[in-house]
Amino acid sequence: MILAPIHHAPTTAELSARLERLQARMAEQKLDWYISYQPDNVFYLTNFANMVHERPFVLMVPAKGPLKFLVPLLECPHVRSRSVGAIELVDYFEFPAPEGQNWFDRMQAVIGGAARVGVESVCPLQIYDAISAERVRTDLIDDLRLIKSPYEIGRMVYAGQIASAAMADLLETASPGRSLAEVNTRGSGLMFQRLIKDEPSVNPQATKLASVFHPAQYSHDPHNFGDLGMRMAEGGPHVSIINAVLNGYGSEIERTFFINHVPEAAKRPYEVMMEGRHLALEMTRPGTRMCDVDKAVNDLFKAAGYAENLLHRTGHGMGVTAHEAPFLAEGDPRVLEPGMSFTIEPGIYFPGIGGFRHSDTVLITEDGNICLTSAPDTLEAMTLMR
Amino acid sequence: MILAPIHHAPTTAELSARLERLQARMAEQKLDWYISYQPDNVFYLTNFANMVHERPFVLMVPAKGPLKFLVPLLECPHVRSRSVGAIELVDYFEFPAPEGQNWFDRMQAVIGGAARVGVESVCPLQIYDAISAERVRTDLIDDLRLIKSPYEIGRMVYAGQIASAAMADLLETASPGRSLAEVNTRGSGLMFQRLIKDEPSVNPQATKLASVFHPAQYSHDPHNFGDLGMRMAEGGPHVSIINAVLNGYGSEIERTFFINHVPEAAKRPYEVMMEGRHLALEMTRPGTRMCDVDKAVNDLFKAAGYAENLLHRTGHGMGVTAHEAPFLAEGDPRVLEPGMSFTIEPGIYFPGIGGFRHSDTVLITEDGNICLTSAPDTLEAMTLMR
Repeated sequence: MILAPIHHAPTTAELSARLERLQARMAEQKLDWYISYQPDNVFYLTNFANMVHERPFVLMVPAKGPLKFLVPLLECPHVRSRSVGAIELVDYFEFPAPEGQNWFDRMQAVIGGAARVGVESVCPLQIYDAISAERVRTDLIDDLRLIKSPYEIGRMVYAGQIASAAMADLLETASPGRSLAEVNTRGSGLMFQRLIKDEPSVNPQATKLASVFHPAQYSHDPHNFGDLGMRMAEGGPHVSIINAVLNGYGSEIERTFFINHVPEAAKRPYEVMMEGRHLALEMTRPGTRMCDVDKAVNDLFKAAGYAENLLHRTGHGMGVTAHEAPFLAEGDPRVLEPGMSFTIEPGIYFPGIGGFRHSDTVLITEDGNICLTSAPDTLEAMTLMR
Repeated sequence: MILAPIHHAPTTAELSARLERLQARMAEQKLDWYISYQPDNVFYLTNFANMVHERPFVLMVPAKGPLKFLVPLLECPHVRSRSVGAIELVDYFEFPAPEGQNWFDRMQAVIGGAARVGVESVCPLQIYDAISAERVRTDLIDDLRLIKSPYEIGRMVYAGQIASAAMADLLETASPGRSLAEVNTRGSGLMFQRLIKDEPSVNPQATKLASVFHPAQYSHDPHNFGDLGMRMAEGGPHVSIINAVLNGYGSEIERTFFINHVPEAAKRPYEVMMEGRHLALEMTRPGTRMCDVDKAVNDLFKAAGYAENLLHRTGHGMGVTAHEAPFLAEGDPRVLEPGMSFTIEPGIYFPGIGGFRHSDTVLITEDGNICLTSAPDTLEAMTLMR
């Protein structure tokens, strides 16, 4: 398994191989066309990341031959400048256009003769309604994205290095009084400077940077970053998060840390969180069902008396986004395979005490997993003396 | 018409009035429920802006009574902290969850007895498929959003002031060698500092800031910001763009400018663009059809010999986003009404010379329109001497 970092754009051969795999699966399902609207799926097959607005960008994948891509006229040069491989553009002037010249008229002109067309689970109703053929709901591109190619693994190794460097900096500069706004500006800036230095053609549309934290009084509420004036303070737990799409590939690393001392009430939750983390890292290996990892971790937390302190699954997939399928979740019965990538981030939450969660991005290998991100994780190392 | 700026969050009365108007329209269509997934529509009715990821947030609007909002368990405190008005949360533990406990099971438990359910044009197929009742495609919330309330007008006046101040700064600091990265960092920073000063509880999830420009060699390709190293230079046309959602309400202002001199080849296109702009500003008034504004502007450009230099419609709507329906487009036959808001931004594009486009955000009044953004627009004023 190649673990050297890669930061260049994909080659035509890489994208052709993805299209071939997709067309092979389309043949199994006897699909004449597959229609993709989901921007991350479009990016996966074209290297083009569109600004999502009301003008539809619709990728039309034929059973054989090159991709056709329905785009607004004003985006044609932009698409040509970023896309990789042979793609035929089908343009429409505007949204909405006069009768007979709309995006759905152009789409119909291409796929109107089809008998069976595959559509995604997230296909917007207006696109679904514009297909006159038999429509088969199937997520073939999402399925392909589950297993990373050697090139993708190289990109994710690179993304992991940048995210880890940002986390190292966040922990080094953590101190009482430091605000969320300061931490996000500095961390995002560091990551972006590194990206643009390594790859001057970095795509801002495929780059989303977050470097944030919660102090103790917020860390039980993991998605609430509403108060930008929140500040680090003595004690903790603080939960820090680097979650970023770095020029087209995602990475995540999170650490729970304390400043100068660990409150007594935080010691056991931290220890139990670490037990869940070690169990998840141990179980996340080929052949295991994803749901079984999550069930084992949840059972461990419940046995520790923390059934009421669970808010989420053990982990989510990682790839061209920083948050995607599949899931280390009790509801996902799929089997782990080499080349998949996940966050491992079991967490427990206590209003009045705080949240406890580390996260690392791992790659499933032939016989286990390896972390693509790294930072110390012991309570000793995460008690920062300032 | 009240034109004082407002920056506070909406009151319960404001959101109740929106819900009442929606329920009145639902009654006309005999809908038992209306299902909204579109995050901007959800924000319009709740003041909650969700981070869009794979876990669905589904707003369920009953024919009578308070909203019900299907959300992942881990987001409940976040939703409670931001939402305004009476909203019943319906939570699900995770995505995916074990059989019988998924989001669609919870949704079915609420709306399972319905006969007729309204769904949006952009409703994802998986949500559409989860509704067992008769499904009626109708965009009732989008329709409500067309006409701004006095409160919303105040928010848009405020947003226009911030965007205009950022444009003034961009023009003041424009000089040869200045990079896209510098301009975006400075402009976004200025807007954000102003927001957080005026309203410390600014919602980052409802804030999207862009302050960018194209130098002459890129300005014919209006959506391509791929080269972050692009720099201002002597001459032009440069096209500068402030397009921002400012704590929940959008604004846009754009100016075409030159540095130290105007290339000969740019003079006539600038003049013709200004003729299109004046015509659009004149015609955008109550009672006129949107398509007629665009047709008149396009005809003017075609008569000037620039049929091949058109890339887009005259303008788009503005509101809780910075880019939304309705459209000053040949394909939009709706009639302009007081309380609507649009960009006015006719543009023409010449590879090898550049792009020509000013944009302002206007509000339709009883007898015409008023600009919510402002900056000089003459060629003389837009020839910056440095």
